[in-house]
Amino acid sequence: MAKIKKLAVLGSTGSIGQSTLEIARRHPNRFKILALAAGKNKRLFKQQVEEFRPKIISLSDGKDIYELKRNLSYAPKVYWGDNGLLETAICDSVDMVVAALVGASGLAPTLAAIKAGKDIALANKEVLVMAGKLVMEEVKKNKINLLPIDSEHSAIFQSLVGHKKGDITRLILTASGGPFLNMPVKKLPGIMPEEALEHPKWKMGKKVTIDSATLMNKGLEVIEAMWLFDMPPEKISVHVHPQSVVHSMVEYIDGSIVAQLGPTDMKGPISYALTYPDERIDCGIAPLNLCKMDKLTFIEPDKNRFPALRLAYEAIETGDTMPAVLNAADEVAVEAFLQREIAFTDITKVVEKTMEVSKNRGQRIKNPLTLESSNPSLEEILEADRYARETAKEIVKKVRSRQ
Amino acid sequence: MAKIKKLAVLGSTGSIGQSTLEIARRHPNRFKILALAAGKNKRLFKQQVEEFRPKIISLSDGKDIYELKRNLSYAPKVYWGDNGLLETAICDSVDMVVAALVGASGLAPTLAAIKAGKDIALANKEVLVMAGKLVMEEVKKNKINLLPIDSEHSAIFQSLVGHKKGDITRLILTASGGPFLNMPVKKLPGIMPEEALEHPKWKMGKKVTIDSATLMNKGLEVIEAMWLFDMPPEKISVHVHPQSVVHSMVEYIDGSIVAQLGPTDMKGPISYALTYPDERIDCGIAPLNLCKMDKLTFIEPDKNRFPALRLAYEAIETGDTMPAVLNAADEVAVEAFLQREIAFTDITKVVEKTMEVSKNRGQRIKNPLTLESSNPSLEEILEADRYARETAKEIVKKVRSRQ
Repeated sequence: MAKIKKLAVLGSTGSIGQSTLEIARRHPNRFKILALAAGKNKRLFKQQVEEFRPKIISLSDGKDIYELKRNLSYAPKVYWGDNGLLETAICDSVDMVVAALVGASGLAPTLAAIKAGKDIALANKEVLVMAGKLVMEEVKKNKINLLPIDSEHSAIFQSLVGHKKGDITRLILTASGGPFLNMPVKKLPGIMPEEALEHPKWKMGKKVTIDSATLMNKGLEVIEAMWLFDMPPEKISVHVHPQSVVHSMVEYIDGSIVAQLGPTDMKGPISYALTYPDERIDCGIAPLNLCKMDKLTFIEPDKNRFPALRLAYEAIETGDTMPAVLNAADEVAVEAFLQREIAFTDITKVVEKTMEVSKNRGQRIKNPLTLESSNPSLEEILEADRYARETAKEIVKKVRSRQ
Repeated sequence: MAKIKKLAVLGSTGSIGQSTLEIARRHPNRFKILALAAGKNKRLFKQQVEEFRPKIISLSDGKDIYELKRNLSYAPKVYWGDNGLLETAICDSVDMVVAALVGASGLAPTLAAIKAGKDIALANKEVLVMAGKLVMEEVKKNKINLLPIDSEHSAIFQSLVGHKKGDITRLILTASGGPFLNMPVKKLPGIMPEEALEHPKWKMGKKVTIDSATLMNKGLEVIEAMWLFDMPPEKISVHVHPQSVVHSMVEYIDGSIVAQLGPTDMKGPISYALTYPDERIDCGIAPLNLCKMDKLTFIEPDKNRFPALRLAYEAIETGDTMPAVLNAADEVAVEAFLQREIAFTDITKVVEKTMEVSKNRGQRIKNPLTLESSNPSLEEILEADRYARETAKEIVKKVRSRQ
């Protein structure tokens, strides 16, 4: 029987964080929660802290954490802000850090955890999108396991474990195609946030749900897969698969495809990441009954309908900090869409324009903070991220003034 | 790079044998043919022998092999008959024996090869159906690899390699359902051999094609899977999957299903068996394009339409030599159907009646040659096989006389 794995969870009040704790609750003989960090959801965080009694806790705000501390029935170490995320990530005797923050904020603490020799269960895909090269170098140097929590990457991981990397001809990421797969292209600009937030298959956070509707999520996942599995982009394909039953596939040189299928419940990929390489666990998910499901279909993605996918491949081709620019611009654009500042189809336009501006700037200033550097440092990446956000916000303003 | 694997092929002129040699021809740096055995197809066998120049060759008939020897451009060792199969199977310095005979004849030579420490690529499913317990004990004792060549079992093998056996909740074998999946049940008795020989997806030998139409093939495969993967029958399900794209699946405790998909070309599973655990090879099979395929569907098998599946589970439950009885009776019944002696729907009736008679006899005579022995020896299995054939032939005669 596997020994107890000691966990730190970054982002415990989010969707992935909550599911992680649900699994830990169900399997106290497999997991112990040593550290928890969250943002602003004080109420839920207090419940979690009282239940699991971690030795380190952290919230975004110092006032919040001290208020919480006064009301707790025990005395954990408390931290806050960016430093709190770092302390949670490197908490002593933690075996695995569940990196479930959203956006760029997870990058520094995840890197710190890797350098501290922790295994990582990674839901926070921006970590690899922004700094894949840097992160994977540290993964190798520190000989840690980096397990994906994305359902697609978990599927690929499960479809290549036990097989030879050299035999792989292609990774095939599946995409649900989101709620607007069959909407006339003309109608796309009129989509409202509440429509885009209705994902047909998965219940997820807002950012990733909108990214699923634009297919930007799949673009980010292509970048993530490239780093995680050390595959060139031309060996990564995307199939739209509206039923979301096949979560992704690996094609081998002999024509064989190994695929992973499962219910659309993130507890599947989370528990796989938490348990690997030990025995899997029952997370109370009802198994698939393929005989009672819709017919399974696969479709080439329509690049006119979904320009995000093209932008992601362009960012890969440019390389360097461009994936970080893509990611930052998308965060700004999605937020602007949710705030009803721009139209649904403006999201990818803002991203494309931001990439253009960033590229021109890089070519103009020719300094280490530009695309000229082939192996950007964390500072260069964060600077590109900052500049891209600023640029994207400017572009959003221009788009609004035109409305 | 993997070193050259030295092969002996039992049944080189059959469909699997020919594909094996095609792969060996394409990859001379991976395979060398040291021994070949075939039955009566002298002309093709001569071509194969001249091309690969094995050091041992064997045919069914002594006259045939000596005639061939006189006309060869080199001087291999020659054998014939049952002894020839044995000598081929244990040929010195062979690493792997491709067991591609049809029916019971492959059992003794395959066992001999295992005892001689050879790895086995097994297409000859009767070996496991008849003597699974005995064979798997020898596999363990001699620490050899037994690789399945059936597409379904190869799929299961590829879907569990790298995963933990204890995590498996179910093996799901897929079945095309054959050409009569949607024919009104009333019309089944009138099916002609030429209709049954038209398999919608796979090109195979006659026996297995008829077995695919009755689903007896799937029944035999359930028994095969039980031994090969050491799984109780209640953990083995069958899904009818008319598109034959998903070749089989493994379900795990966390709700995850790993599946193998591929073109309907036996060179896929053959080459996997030949190459494992070394690098896979390109066998010139065009990869699947899932975006250009029919929708994938899965259906619970209709047990009224396909009584063969029920009979196979009954044979497993009875245990001992009953799977050998099932197998023998089916060989006789299929042959009688092909000779137009009995109707399509009589095939499973002959099998069921033979199982009944064998069971009664076993209960009556209570000796070591009966079902009372829980771990039948090779002799007991072969005696059960002989008795079942005799019985099945009698039953066929009675069915004919009633027509």
